[in-house]
Amino acid sequence: MDESAILLLHSADRKGLVSVIANFLFDHGGNILHADQHQDAELGLFFMRIEWSLRDFDLAERQFRKAFTPLAESLGLHWRVTFGRRRINVALLVSRYQHCLIDLLYRHQIGELDCNIAFIISNHEDAQPLAAFYGVPFHHIPVAAGRKDHAEQLQVELLRQHEAELVVLARYMQVLSAEFVALYPRQIINVHHSFLPAFVGAKPYHGAYERGVKLIGATSHYVTDVLDEGPIIEQDVTRISHRDRLEDLISKGRDLEKIVLSRAVRWHLEHRILCYGNKTVVFD
Amino acid sequence: MDESAILLLHSADRKGLVSVIANFLFDHGGNILHADQHQDAELGLFFMRIEWSLRDFDLAERQFRKAFTPLAESLGLHWRVTFGRRRINVALLVSRYQHCLIDLLYRHQIGELDCNIAFIISNHEDAQPLAAFYGVPFHHIPVAAGRKDHAEQLQVELLRQHEAELVVLARYMQVLSAEFVALYPRQIINVHHSFLPAFVGAKPYHGAYERGVKLIGATSHYVTDVLDEGPIIEQDVTRISHRDRLEDLISKGRDLEKIVLSRAVRWHLEHRILCYGNKTVVFD
Amino acid sequence: MDESAILLLHSADRKGLVSVIANFLFDHGGNILHADQHQDAELGLFFMRIEWSLRDFDLAERQFRKAFTPLAESLGLHWRVTFGRRRINVALLVSRYQHCLIDLLYRHQIGELDCNIAFIISNHEDAQPLAAFYGVPFHHIPVAAGRKDHAEQLQVELLRQHEAELVVLARYMQVLSAEFVALYPRQIINVHHSFLPAFVGAKPYHGAYERGVKLIGATSHYVTDVLDEGPIIEQDVTRISHRDRLEDLISKGRDLEKIVLSRAVRWHLEHRILCYGNKTVVFD
Amino acid sequence: MDESAILLLHSADRKGLVSVIANFLFDHGGNILHADQHQDAELGLFFMRIEWSLRDFDLAERQFRKAFTPLAESLGLHWRVTFGRRRINVALLVSRYQHCLIDLLYRHQIGELDCNIAFIISNHEDAQPLAAFYGVPFHHIPVAAGRKDHAEQLQVELLRQHEAELVVLARYMQVLSAEFVALYPRQIINVHHSFLPAFVGAKPYHGAYERGVKLIGATSHYVTDVLDEGPIIEQDVTRISHRDRLEDLISKGRDLEKIVLSRAVRWHLEHRILCYGNKTVVFD
Repeated sequence: MDESAILLLHSADRKGLVSVIANFLFDHGGNILHADQHQDAELGLFFMRIEWSLRDFDLAERQFRKAFTPLAESLGLHWRVTFGRRRINVALLVSRYQHCLIDLLYRHQIGELDCNIAFIISNHEDAQPLAAFYGVPFHHIPVAAGRKDHAEQLQVELLRQHEAELVVLARYMQVLSAEFVALYPRQIINVHHSFLPAFVGAKPYHGAYERGVKLIGATSHYVTDVLDEGPIIEQDVTRISHRDRLEDLISKGRDLEKIVLSRAVRWHLEHRILCYGNKTVVFD
Repeated sequence: MDESAILLLHSADRKGLVSVIANFLFDHGGNILHADQHQDAELGLFFMRIEWSLRDFDLAERQFRKAFTPLAESLGLHWRVTFGRRRINVALLVSRYQHCLIDLLYRHQIGELDCNIAFIISNHEDAQPLAAFYGVPFHHIPVAAGRKDHAEQLQVELLRQHEAELVVLARYMQVLSAEFVALYPRQIINVHHSFLPAFVGAKPYHGAYERGVKLIGATSHYVTDVLDEGPIIEQDVTRISHRDRLEDLISKGRDLEKIVLSRAVRWHLEHRILCYGNKTVVFD
Repeated sequence: MDESAILLLHSADRKGLVSVIANFLFDHGGNILHADQHQDAELGLFFMRIEWSLRDFDLAERQFRKAFTPLAESLGLHWRVTFGRRRINVALLVSRYQHCLIDLLYRHQIGELDCNIAFIISNHEDAQPLAAFYGVPFHHIPVAAGRKDHAEQLQVELLRQHEAELVVLARYMQVLSAEFVALYPRQIINVHHSFLPAFVGAKPYHGAYERGVKLIGATSHYVTDVLDEGPIIEQDVTRISHRDRLEDLISKGRDLEKIVLSRAVRWHLEHRILCYGNKTVVFD
Repeated sequence: MDESAILLLHSADRKGLVSVIANFLFDHGGNILHADQHQDAELGLFFMRIEWSLRDFDLAERQFRKAFTPLAESLGLHWRVTFGRRRINVALLVSRYQHCLIDLLYRHQIGELDCNIAFIISNHEDAQPLAAFYGVPFHHIPVAAGRKDHAEQLQVELLRQHEAELVVLARYMQVLSAEFVALYPRQIINVHHSFLPAFVGAKPYHGAYERGVKLIGATSHYVTDVLDEGPIIEQDVTRISHRDRLEDLISKGRDLEKIVLSRAVRWHLEHRILCYGNKTVVFD
């Protein structure tokens, strides 16, 4: 398969946008492989994901940026582009529960997640052997009471040193500070163990059990500085009944958490997600 | 198929309960057709639904009540029993949207809902022709601003007059008063157009659209005097995406509303639901 | 909302196609509202659905056809176009079971299905009152043993007379002849009460019950002259257990049948379906 | 939590059965924790799972068997009983794909699967490191063309030596001989990567892709000597679209396979499954 480039953009809707961009690519020898558009009529916004073959394309990434920038400015586009298979560096943060971590590491191993898993950070030591098994560097950074700032400082140093571009909270049970979050806007993905916005905050399975719901869910979302309020990327649910005890909810929930988190990470890596307002467009 | 009787009970758990009840039925010639138990270990409660054939059973309903009462008292049971196919009277309340009403009337017609649909009440006239088509009495009771008490008085008169034992709010858009609700404890079923407890209150589809969730849901529940907080009977969800506009959510939601409401009504009529605390046990 | 036009096309994939078509529309003042593409890399086929506003578009339908034809020929496109809200005539065929019919008629009434329901044909008289309620002409055409050709002749006459462009088999229990099918290629939609290709042929719920499956399904598809083998449009399933008797399967199945059939009809009416080989592309 | 015993039985239905068994347990001090019954009215069969506390129960397993046997014989019961938490020995057979194996090993590690994983057999060496990581003995038994009998001989020796009572085919890609299957009736669980009975045999994802289905599934079942025809234990499906290529089907299918296989193993270990004819009753 040839290499390809992906352009994601949004703008105030305007006539001819598709035409202008399609022409730009065509004029440089780009064969469009996939294109998906979306329009939010209410907000007057236009979203686009376009992927084209680099086989006969006559611009390298730097040249593309140079040539496309004036066009984008004249059209008022917000855009980002990715050329070829540049594997970004991903950091995984985890606490005690390892099901999401195992899941992500195996999916990465068999090629489902096209990235470089740079390292794992945990506030516990439990995941060390697993990290070793998969050959991923492991950093134990305990979070002492009242010293979260110190831990975050160490975390950020590691992220910078490895040039991490995506942080995945794979059941990391510490709330990140607003300062940390601000460093990685739309680059931190979390999994919440409920069907948000039901059961925000801690102990959602307990909440679901108490309320007597008939379905439980899990939600993956980008982290913003308001807890559990970031743009939702993916959700799924499963059926429960009165026969399920609290521990059954937790057990069934694990399967949901793995699935919604891994989908979110995959879609992020495949440049399928556009955020606007507090929502996401996922071009699947 | 022979006629059968159904006994629903709950109690503080105690040794030998199943044995005592099975013996009682056996001694009177009752062949157990179905039995289902559930135990809430945390609360120390025991729930049971038991159905037996009346073919060789030597007690009529009145005799059963007389014979079973002392036993039940000695065991501290809360119980209710139904003999044979007594069809209870059901009242349907509806406002403008008729999808749930149509659904219930057709299911009743083909035998899915074993009851007598006594009448329909609406604060609008829209459903009149449909009621006529199915031959169900229709009462138009407008709810004037500030005069809900008057409307409810008329509604209660009708309910009493027809000896209604179940009130189904098939997208009835008025909040019932605490007084009304108190007259029919665990006998009023509502459908809420969200996956409760997400998006309580009015305009849940708007809330779901704003929040950018990836699934929408519907919930059927018994009505208590705290709005949207009654025991949940059934829930279901369906997937949406950024491509769905608000009206698509509403349209997809209609299918969910019909399904969760009709299931709840059916289970109620089949004596499958036990309430405790603010939760339900549904013996399916 | 302004009127719009929709162009559906497929072709051997070729560079610049999106660009050429986008330009064509742009040059005539068309603002693209939605566009969706799909490429089958294996078969080397390209599919596109493009919808644009007619507000400032300077071509009427006839002019469009005249102007677009040479372009399409030079590019080797298979295409069809719809201008504005032309409501096509739809014929509903039904036998005894009315759940799908009721569902379609109500969805039509509230605006979910943007078409003209021209008439209902049935080999039974049961649906006559329902047709009358909704004010739709009803034709009772019995199918005598060995005289299906005669019945089909009458059916085709009606279809022609009313210029029907879509035939919906809403649980019509007669197999159509190859001759009939050939008259309406990709214009006859059927609902099969199983998850095809499991349980082809008659009595699929019996087959599902016998085999002890844990999910039952329903499938909507275009009718071809090979029974149950046409291109699948939509499928859905629901969970069952050993507690479900055959009649429960049938009852649960009805809800699936309504949903998959109505989705298929809606997508067809919204020009969202492209067929190729024996498969469908559904641009949702 | 106290230890408990579980009795599974089926019989021709007869009056008083529940009563007799409940009495037997009550007379020996057994407090019933859960009981579930099922009746197949058509076949006239009665199924029961009953679990009781051993805290005040006055019979040990051997005594129970001695005391219960004559009663069971007089009633014509087929039964089996388990006392306390006896962990059975389980053998896992796997080929190249490790997703099910990883899933089962982790679930076992965190306590979801209450058994002893005795060893892993594979016809490939790929899973060796994973087995070592979890400390499970690994046996590489290649299956040479035309020498399957030899491989099976070695497998059976290992199974006997370790007194394995359950064999799990965790994507083991060799068909077992009728002789092998006969040694472990209702003790071999397989996962098939389709929604059976659709797409039996090899390459079901290819079949699903060709047919253009809109949902793909996976099925766990007991192995009988007719390929893909054994009693179904669990099934699940997920939605696909024209956008999914064959490799996407395979990837999405992996998540289904893990879930349906692990549920089947868990239910088997918890003595929740009764087979009759070619179907299962799963007391969940």
